Amino acid sequence: MTDDESSTGGSTEALLRRYWETCEARDWDGFGALLAPDVVYVVHQTRERVTGREAYVRFNREFPGEWHVTVVRVVADASGGAVWTRFDVGEESMTGLHFLTLADGLVSRVDDFWPEPYEPPAGRAHLVERF
Amino acid sequence: MTDDESSTGGSTEALLRRYWETCEARDWDGFGALLAPDVVYVVHQTRERVTGREAYVRFNREFPGEWHVTVVRVVADASGGAVWTRFDVGEESMTGLHFLTLADGLVSRVDDFWPEPYEPPAGRAHLVERF
Repeated sequence: MTDDESSTGGSTEALLRRYWETCEARDWDGFGALLAPDVVYVVHQTRERVTGREAYVRFNREFPGEWHVTVVRVVADASGGAVWTRFDVGEESMTGLHFLTLADGLVSRVDDFWPEPYEPPAGRAHLVERF
Repeated sequence: MTDDESSTGGSTEALLRRYWETCEARDWDGFGALLAPDVVYVVHQTRERVTGREAYVRFNREFPGEWHVTVVRVVADASGGAVWTRFDVGEESMTGLHFLTLADGLVSRVDDFWPEPYEPPAGRAHLVERF
């Protein structure tokens, strides 16, 4: 990695954190300013895709519920990053996992995942503790 | 980021890729050599935890099915990384998302997520296309 790439990595982390800060603040102008005009947002689990800055800002602005987002972990490199978030809505808490891709310093693609609780498979209780 | 951290970031990506290569090859000695003795593996969705290299190698070695793993994307920095994988078992395909933490050049913690398909919520069809 060159010095130039490492400094891009550092500013990438700042950009990813700002992405979530503007969401939490409902600062939709600030959020939109981080997005490429042709940004693509993909929810793999539902096979949904939103294309373009205007539609994606609206998707977030119209998202129902009094949600609050907290960043749990950010991993960033020059190409973009992965962010692990917690979304709280009242007493409920959800995990969000987000792979972001950058182009020319803007978010050009977001791949989102929303893993939900499930029962552990049988046959591994001898290796595992529950929490 | 210093030069030293960026070179750590580069070797981190190599280590993360080797983690999955040794899994796919069922090279359990090679896999175990990447793990800290007190490695902790956490499946958040089932609230399961596996502690220690021996138990975690066994957890993977005993995992049922003729699974094959392909790395879709790696994001790495000096602290560890995030890996997006595809697991194929016969005709079925699953997504795995993994946050790995390193300590002294070994994997000290793995936070795993297995997001499953779900139906899209109502009220956003005007912004979304399906694929």
